[in-house]
Amino acid sequence: MKAILDLDTGIDDALALAYAIAHPDLELIGVTCTYGNVTVPLAVRNTLALLELLGKGDVPVFAGPSPAGFRPSEISSFIHGRNGVGEVLLPPATGQVQSQPAAEFLIQAVHEHGADLVIIPTGPSTTIAAAMRQDPSFAANAHLVMMGGALTVPGNVTPWSEANISQDPEATDYLFRHAGDITMVGLDVTLRTLLTAEESARWRASGTRAGRIFADMVDYYIGAYATTSPYLGGCGLHDPLAVAVAADASLVDVLSINLKTDTTGPTRGRTIADETRLSTPATAKVAVGVDSERFVREFVELLETLFSEL
Amino acid sequence: MKAILDLDTGIDDALALAYAIAHPDLELIGVTCTYGNVTVPLAVRNTLALLELLGKGDVPVFAGPSPAGFRPSEISSFIHGRNGVGEVLLPPATGQVQSQPAAEFLIQAVHEHGADLVIIPTGPSTTIAAAMRQDPSFAANAHLVMMGGALTVPGNVTPWSEANISQDPEATDYLFRHAGDITMVGLDVTLRTLLTAEESARWRASGTRAGRIFADMVDYYIGAYATTSPYLGGCGLHDPLAVAVAADASLVDVLSINLKTDTTGPTRGRTIADETRLSTPATAKVAVGVDSERFVREFVELLETLFSEL
Repeated sequence: MKAILDLDTGIDDALALAYAIAHPDLELIGVTCTYGNVTVPLAVRNTLALLELLGKGDVPVFAGPSPAGFRPSEISSFIHGRNGVGEVLLPPATGQVQSQPAAEFLIQAVHEHGADLVIIPTGPSTTIAAAMRQDPSFAANAHLVMMGGALTVPGNVTPWSEANISQDPEATDYLFRHAGDITMVGLDVTLRTLLTAEESARWRASGTRAGRIFADMVDYYIGAYATTSPYLGGCGLHDPLAVAVAADASLVDVLSINLKTDTTGPTRGRTIADETRLSTPATAKVAVGVDSERFVREFVELLETLFSEL
Repeated sequence: MKAILDLDTGIDDALALAYAIAHPDLELIGVTCTYGNVTVPLAVRNTLALLELLGKGDVPVFAGPSPAGFRPSEISSFIHGRNGVGEVLLPPATGQVQSQPAAEFLIQAVHEHGADLVIIPTGPSTTIAAAMRQDPSFAANAHLVMMGGALTVPGNVTPWSEANISQDPEATDYLFRHAGDITMVGLDVTLRTLLTAEESARWRASGTRAGRIFADMVDYYIGAYATTSPYLGGCGLHDPLAVAVAADASLVDVLSINLKTDTTGPTRGRTIADETRLSTPATAKVAVGVDSERFVREFVELLETLFSEL
């Protein structure tokens, strides 16, 4: 299965990128960059550098749209570091961003690959919604596995809103109302998939530069989580879980439902069932249960192998 | 299976009462009355009258606690009528409420019947929480199938709060944190179980007083729903579905989860997963899918039989 990631390249995005490269069932054909954990230019820079670090400098990187003057929130900068990768210094990239806009690349890729392509957005829905508005056949034919939202659990930026959705609720609402096939991998399951310093130590032990850099990033991330969510006992593997589900849907239990995003009123940014479409055929699947033991084991092992072979 | 209903006897409570009497797998051994759709004294009066109308005047009725000066909300009075039963005149009851308090009766019943008893609360959690506080063994041993809450869908009194929970969020939160076995049958599923005037016409056609009275109540209720929730095309069978699930759990798909109720902050009254107990064994089951076609068919038929045999 071909895959495109849409990343706002912070730490768990970096883990998702590595996992998409490491996963035997996925072929990464491009990365589109969006804002959120970092700005678009920084997401591009981080993505190019990480791809080269992982021996995949040939994968094209595209820039998506961004709100004018966007700056990451204080809490984003705390969790991901000001440079998005836990203040770890990445070897500078030699490659360049593509000139084609991200939405155009996504539309073209769906036309070209159809059912053999999965798109995995792990940031705000801005770029995906833009592609849907530009080409309605994209909405109908794209297969999306999105990290974002919170259906059965509280949000993480407000009591009802998850960080990705909170950036652009209108875009996610558009996506829920138009996507022909979307799986939501939200906090409902990602907060059950935890990584601890024990696992990052295994990557460090690979002795490679990539293994050390990823271990450093994750240790920073675990430290941030120990402050923001001490009851978890680790860091949530948000974005990597979406990659895993795109490759192997049997990792999660899903609820079939028609979703909306509240765009007005006190619960702006909330992902919830659309009470006016309870009895019409469901277009979305929401992951509400996860085999976290198997996911974490496969994730740690595949990344260990990837790092040790570099 | 023996059953006790805890009702705030409005229209769908009346339907739940009739269904518990009609259901071949349930034996109704008592009704405790709470506030919500109506006051406790009116819930008692309606319950006594309905039991006698349905030939079950021998089922004891108990009064639960109520906040001082409680008055039903405007919207409750609109949906259930000022008298709680759609302004339909019930034949006055000849029986009397029991002197034993509701919580004491519930505790005694669980001691007596244990696993052979299901308690079905369809109003605020006040009485159930009181019983739990009085006797911790009640919390551990009672089997509860509760109508209330909204996990995957918006609330019906605020965007996040369902009517029963909104009355006493602290009580429901206590219940979620202490109940050994609770199934939540909330708006997630009850809004998918709709009754229309076509079904009530079948009860009216039974030619009995009970059939006519229940048809009149339901037609009033359907009229109110046409104003408040025109997109549904009928009225939600909230409380009867909880009775049905108590008798036959196979009617619903459930999500096993540890729940809480927000008692402070902007989302007071919301039922949601407790993010600090995501990885501990789940004590609650939330109904998130329902075989509504089978439920409505069985419900309408069993009530038709009950009414026609009176």
